[in-house]
Amino acid sequence: QVTPRPEAAPGARPGFRAPARIISPEIMPDNKVTFRVYSKDASKVTITGEWQTGPGGVEELVKNDTGMFSITVGPLKPELYAYNFTVDGVKALDANNVQVRRDGTNYQNFFIIPGPESDLYFHKNNVPHGTVTKVWYKSSVIGFDRRMYVYTPAGYEGDTQRYPVFYLLHGAGGDEDAWTNMGRTAQIMDNLIAQGKAKPMIVVMTNGNANQAGAQNEVPPVPVTQGQQGIPSGSGMTGKFEEHLVKDVVPFIEKNFRALTGKDNRAIAGLSMGGGHTQTITNDNPGMFSYIGVFSMGIMAGRQQGADAEKIEKERDAKIEALKKSGYKLYWIACGKDDFVYQSALTLRNTLDKHNFKYVYRESTGGHTWANWRIYLSEFAPMLFK
Amino acid sequence: QVTPRPEAAPGARPGFRAPARIISPEIMPDNKVTFRVYSKDASKVTITGEWQTGPGGVEELVKNDTGMFSITVGPLKPELYAYNFTVDGVKALDANNVQVRRDGTNYQNFFIIPGPESDLYFHKNNVPHGTVTKVWYKSSVIGFDRRMYVYTPAGYEGDTQRYPVFYLLHGAGGDEDAWTNMGRTAQIMDNLIAQGKAKPMIVVMTNGNANQAGAQNEVPPVPVTQGQQGIPSGSGMTGKFEEHLVKDVVPFIEKNFRALTGKDNRAIAGLSMGGGHTQTITNDNPGMFSYIGVFSMGIMAGRQQGADAEKIEKERDAKIEALKKSGYKLYWIACGKDDFVYQSALTLRNTLDKHNFKYVYRESTGGHTWANWRIYLSEFAPMLFK
Repeated sequence: QVTPRPEAAPGARPGFRAPARIISPEIMPDNKVTFRVYSKDASKVTITGEWQTGPGGVEELVKNDTGMFSITVGPLKPELYAYNFTVDGVKALDANNVQVRRDGTNYQNFFIIPGPESDLYFHKNNVPHGTVTKVWYKSSVIGFDRRMYVYTPAGYEGDTQRYPVFYLLHGAGGDEDAWTNMGRTAQIMDNLIAQGKAKPMIVVMTNGNANQAGAQNEVPPVPVTQGQQGIPSGSGMTGKFEEHLVKDVVPFIEKNFRALTGKDNRAIAGLSMGGGHTQTITNDNPGMFSYIGVFSMGIMAGRQQGADAEKIEKERDAKIEALKKSGYKLYWIACGKDDFVYQSALTLRNTLDKHNFKYVYRESTGGHTWANWRIYLSEFAPMLFK
Repeated sequence: QVTPRPEAAPGARPGFRAPARIISPEIMPDNKVTFRVYSKDASKVTITGEWQTGPGGVEELVKNDTGMFSITVGPLKPELYAYNFTVDGVKALDANNVQVRRDGTNYQNFFIIPGPESDLYFHKNNVPHGTVTKVWYKSSVIGFDRRMYVYTPAGYEGDTQRYPVFYLLHGAGGDEDAWTNMGRTAQIMDNLIAQGKAKPMIVVMTNGNANQAGAQNEVPPVPVTQGQQGIPSGSGMTGKFEEHLVKDVVPFIEKNFRALTGKDNRAIAGLSMGGGHTQTITNDNPGMFSYIGVFSMGIMAGRQQGADAEKIEKERDAKIEALKKSGYKLYWIACGKDDFVYQSALTLRNTLDKHNFKYVYRESTGGHTWANWRIYLSEFAPMLFK
């Protein structure tokens, strides 16, 4: 309620907002999009957006003599696009667009161009919606209470049925909010289930940073005395998260939600760092998950060399053999042609090939992007529990 | 993952964020606070924040010769403060502060000065946390599926106990997200319950705008053909929301959550427009809620005059008499001395006095602010279900 917005109509009552008088973004019937920023005082306004490709990727808005900056881009193909303005060197949100998402510590506006490619993650009013629960649970492995998001399918509240469970892991920089916020998991699952393409299932989205209790925008860092040493980067790489998913998360879900149990009712997938977590968890726990997805990740060249590297490789070989014998149903690897982790995904495939380990490889265009991870989710989920 | 942030360290890998190198806000031990914005190109950066009082309420940052703008304010008393920068006439978030909240369509950064006054809504890692559920439900009255937030107290998942239910309504401009996001309901209830001050209870936070299916930043407007005519402002004033709370929301909660039933296990309160909803709902349904809270609202002078006004007053008189006889346990009115609705709260008190209707009046300092509503919640919740 603070002070009225600068653009509030003259005489507007404090605490009540005037409707925005500037339309931005304006999506035209031909899928061109116009952005507007009003300022008499600013000299230069640029926009950075996900439709831009190649180096630089910045476009400048043009100022007219009333002080309105604008630019029209496109036509854009149907997709979700995030963007930000930069006003005289400072990043700014579009004050006229209520759609904002958080990518780690970075806030961005976004909009969706409707069409076949974006249809699956569009929120539809005429489709039954699942519930998203932000639930806290005890972690014996990490040492403090932690938060995760749980999607339960439409109808869960009204029935007594049990459902299979899909554990869906985020990448570095993200947290338990990433898959719903950036990945639009709830919309994708709602739509896939409504169309009969995916089975109704519970989707569990954890926080992969073992030094965090919950999303960094809502939950203050845990003091060192209460848990682990804070590790600002690479906190997902300590092995603690993986152990805790198996020992803390899965038992909590199977006790407190109406979950089906046993490997054929458990799936796991992750993107980037979460794809690393997925490999560690499934390598270390053969027979726990029958459906395994590694999105935009593979086997990274390790830091160890010589004897250590040989030992790690030997251990991995033994684990892959054990996983092979466990009777999993699907091992799905997806990567973009232009992804900077492409080589690691190739190393994973070569390693599995060496063991005649059956997997499905899906190569997409593009790189290390949420556009790809939404596509991978929408392709992976329909293959589960069938 | 777009492009790296402008302040990313040179050579940072795209898609991975460098730690912010600018500290803003920086809270000093004496509760002075420094804000920083870096830009070689900007001419003028101002800040608007909730610590500012009086007209204007804008302070200008000073630029040094490296391009760093800064300002130090305070010392500030312990409280949550929202703020925004304006850079050459355009509103901008603080890119170095991950704490962002949404007030309707307006995004703001915030920070908390720790201390006794803010202690109750501070997230504490060593306190058990309740679950917040974003649940969809059918609305026969409004005609389309709608979303609400439900807080269940810590331990709800592990036990079989039933809990009393508190329905908590937001004001104009807000939606089902307002009480958790702006009002910090989850933190307040966690802390009150942990301290033994409030009984463990379920808190239900609905969307009071009958033209919305869900929060405006996540759920697109419902097309007219699917439901009611969209009413951009005053959509909470049609009477539909109140009817739907009684006929749709309460039965859904009592069927799908482990809720205790009967009037002594139901409380309702609302702020501003939600205080109006609360009056309508409890006037129209005597014997449904034993605990009633009207925050920063009262009886507004109506638009009707003459015979119509007389009729409305007569009907209200009859309803207040019926409510009086229903055996409610608490009717709590709270208002700030400087609130622009102060007169309406006085009219409500005078009206109730005329009927010898028992109520408790709590007058605070300040106005129509979330700072007050957090205080009112923290005082009202401990009086419930005892």
